[in-house]
Amino acid sequence: MFESAEVGHKVDKASFDAQVPGLREALLEAQFLLREKPEFAVVVLISGVDGAGKGETANLFNEWMDPRHIETVAFGAPTDEERERPFMWRFWRALPPKGKIGIMFGSWYTDPIVNRVNRSTTNAELDKNIADIVEFEKMLTAEKVVLVKLWFHLSKEAQEKRLKALEADPKTRWRVTKDDWEHFKIYDRFRKYSAHTLTATDTGNAPWTIIEGNCPRYRSLYACNTLLERIRQQFARLEHAQATPPAPAAAPRTALDNRTIISNLDLSQKLSKKDYEAQLEKYQGKLALLTRDPRSLKKSVIVVFEGVDAAGKGGAIRRVTGALDARHYSIVPIAAPSDEERAQPYLWRFWRHIPRLGRVTIFDRSWYGRVLVERVEGFATQAAWQRAYTEINHFEAELIKQGAVVVKFWLQISQDEQLRRFEERKETGFKAYKITDEDWRNRDKWPQYEVAVNDMIEHTSTEIAPWTLIGANDKYHARIKILKTLCEAIESALDK
Amino acid sequence: MFESAEVGHKVDKASFDAQVPGLREALLEAQFLLREKPEFAVVVLISGVDGAGKGETANLFNEWMDPRHIETVAFGAPTDEERERPFMWRFWRALPPKGKIGIMFGSWYTDPIVNRVNRSTTNAELDKNIADIVEFEKMLTAEKVVLVKLWFHLSKEAQEKRLKALEADPKTRWRVTKDDWEHFKIYDRFRKYSAHTLTATDTGNAPWTIIEGNCPRYRSLYACNTLLERIRQQFARLEHAQATPPAPAAAPRTALDNRTIISNLDLSQKLSKKDYEAQLEKYQGKLALLTRDPRSLKKSVIVVFEGVDAAGKGGAIRRVTGALDARHYSIVPIAAPSDEERAQPYLWRFWRHIPRLGRVTIFDRSWYGRVLVERVEGFATQAAWQRAYTEINHFEAELIKQGAVVVKFWLQISQDEQLRRFEERKETGFKAYKITDEDWRNRDKWPQYEVAVNDMIEHTSTEIAPWTLIGANDKYHARIKILKTLCEAIESALDK
Repeated sequence: MFESAEVGHKVDKASFDAQVPGLREALLEAQFLLREKPEFAVVVLISGVDGAGKGETANLFNEWMDPRHIETVAFGAPTDEERERPFMWRFWRALPPKGKIGIMFGSWYTDPIVNRVNRSTTNAELDKNIADIVEFEKMLTAEKVVLVKLWFHLSKEAQEKRLKALEADPKTRWRVTKDDWEHFKIYDRFRKYSAHTLTATDTGNAPWTIIEGNCPRYRSLYACNTLLERIRQQFARLEHAQATPPAPAAAPRTALDNRTIISNLDLSQKLSKKDYEAQLEKYQGKLALLTRDPRSLKKSVIVVFEGVDAAGKGGAIRRVTGALDARHYSIVPIAAPSDEERAQPYLWRFWRHIPRLGRVTIFDRSWYGRVLVERVEGFATQAAWQRAYTEINHFEAELIKQGAVVVKFWLQISQDEQLRRFEERKETGFKAYKITDEDWRNRDKWPQYEVAVNDMIEHTSTEIAPWTLIGANDKYHARIKILKTLCEAIESALDK
Repeated sequence: MFESAEVGHKVDKASFDAQVPGLREALLEAQFLLREKPEFAVVVLISGVDGAGKGETANLFNEWMDPRHIETVAFGAPTDEERERPFMWRFWRALPPKGKIGIMFGSWYTDPIVNRVNRSTTNAELDKNIADIVEFEKMLTAEKVVLVKLWFHLSKEAQEKRLKALEADPKTRWRVTKDDWEHFKIYDRFRKYSAHTLTATDTGNAPWTIIEGNCPRYRSLYACNTLLERIRQQFARLEHAQATPPAPAAAPRTALDNRTIISNLDLSQKLSKKDYEAQLEKYQGKLALLTRDPRSLKKSVIVVFEGVDAAGKGGAIRRVTGALDARHYSIVPIAAPSDEERAQPYLWRFWRHIPRLGRVTIFDRSWYGRVLVERVEGFATQAAWQRAYTEINHFEAELIKQGAVVVKFWLQISQDEQLRRFEERKETGFKAYKITDEDWRNRDKWPQYEVAVNDMIEHTSTEIAPWTLIGANDKYHARIKILKTLCEAIESALDK
């Protein structure tokens, strides 16, 4: 991987001086175009060995372009708010919106490589990290993020020479720390695992650029030209995409009969009022104890409520929160995204609400909107909602890895029962329950939704984050089943 | 202050049961109306003595209303991200947007009272805190936040009885901690300083409601009725405001002649290219050292750039950032607010960018937009921009209190010079510098802007955060003066 970056690349001063003015103007122009047509974001990862010019390059980008539209983030030790959330949270948090360029110093590559070099992970664990990264980057690029991954390299000899030269000069001596020499000692291991990781993540959508760091002129020209090309390429791609019809996505499976997971669901289960009240007290009490258990401080709980209109999500949520302390939970109702959310990859608006350890977050509708309403209404392209299944499974795995208990409910009622409830709501004067035209329109699309729900469950009911289907024609039955499922999920997570 | 909350208020069960259904429906309806017409936000502060029902009341609000549109926040120990920012940052961060109800457990009152009770502050310091709170709450309410401040009270005897009763019951024994008894020991001091603070902050726009906490039924009804009334009152006020023309604001001072701070400014100062280059190197070097000084880890630097169009803000900013490490600064260009920002008090969009210690944030245009473009274009009412001077001064004082160095530059060029630069920009093909129609429109309003700038400087050039006026007809002179001023400000802050 690094061979071509050890050949002693150089650019002489005359040639550098001749190229710089044009390059700077082209960079500024590309940046300006991106501001005018904010159709994608650019993320530049700056990684590599110490002394190879990483800091200098970040400064150069800021100097040669308009720094007002560049967001530079250096990831050092995580803050406590970051430590109590999934590993990827801090990177999501730092993503630039469309139209901007983000420069990341240190990235999702740092920990996987360093942990393997330090022997705190195994080869298998590193490979799992790599697989996660590949999926994550696939999602980012599909969501209109241009990923420019720069790796600044120095051969072992060159690094030693560089550190010694810095030390010899009284003006730069302070820049060489004990850490730098410690890192140099493990150069070979670092090189080995970096090469392994880079090779495995050098994908078509997010390729690596390896830059020899010895000659500042070479390094600067190469880094800036790479950035410029990638931005231009993306504009060219967008133009091409507008001019040509989208390639047909794989056709969704057609069912051979009318049976779906939903049509197969038993909606007749019932609970008497008396049993309901007894069990409500029992399971709310249990939930109250579980969420106050000292062990739950090391866990977070994420509950997803999805379901057809009027299936009773709101009432069910209130029976859950009735058992919780208001200081420890949040409810996130998902409606239309804000403009800040629209300027980010789809999952960003959910990442921002991911709770710290010890807390409960309830999503009233969720990221599954992508494969439900956005699919049925055509707001998302077929390609987008089809890849969403994988993206969502990875997202949930990321949450769970860090200690989240993810519990997902689908609330189903029959068409007759929905009609009955709509009519009933029309009757009651109470405005909070008014039925909108949209509710009636959604009802007309019942068959399309049924297929979408069926596919969603098929693709995203995983072992670590299964769907629980709730037959909700009888509210008592539904609420108790929800409380009971939630208790069991938390209990089993605490016992682990 | 607390006398009427020690008379043994009680509500019997029959009367409670009779009132609850109507009250709950009314609360839900008010909440629904607020969602439909998101014209203000509601913040409920829950404070008072231990054991007086604070937690129970927060849970009750969530139970009786739709918890999906309530955001409950409990302020415990600050996170490290919060500790490294001004005291008020965490409260700004937790403000609900318009249309929502936020419940805050612990608030900006907790520290001032507790610090005085613990003797870590003096009476004078407490009174300074109180004065700051009064101004902060005045701003919040002027910015369409309804502040419902609830104080739950128990007499000393009642609190003792309550703690003993909880301890006697095996089921509730865990709720009484050592801390509770420690707090009880200092009941008298706590009562004294609470009473003092509450009296001084019991304003017409943000009054306190003192609730005796003994009887849960009384407490619940009183708290919920207070919230309901305040929401209804605000709707009534808005309706009234729409129906009546706004009261005329105090007329802005008319100058008796045409002299302003701006017209008095010497724009003829110049620097030769040679001197410029020498001084640029000198001051950039100095700035580089100052921002890398270990003492600067305990400070943050906030730089504001304002000025007429084409005065050279962008170029000046690049000369500043040229001396900084890209990993340590952010530039915040201020354009139109996002919809999330529009749903919050005016200063919220700036608070969200306030840096941690050790970092530099540069605002390219700023909160002064309120008294410049918003005033001149009529986007803000006269009442709004007139009160903004005080709000801004308090905001900056809050930043400085925690260790920020605030440096504010106004860049001024003459009308002739502006015209020359506009024409020049039209000539150069380079798109980043294109002149928009808006630039020409702004130019037509030169006299109005000149008055606005004059007033802004008069009202907001404070001892702790003075304006530096930059005659910028000559770019070299301007840039050097900016760098020099910035170095001096940081140097003097580090020496303190």
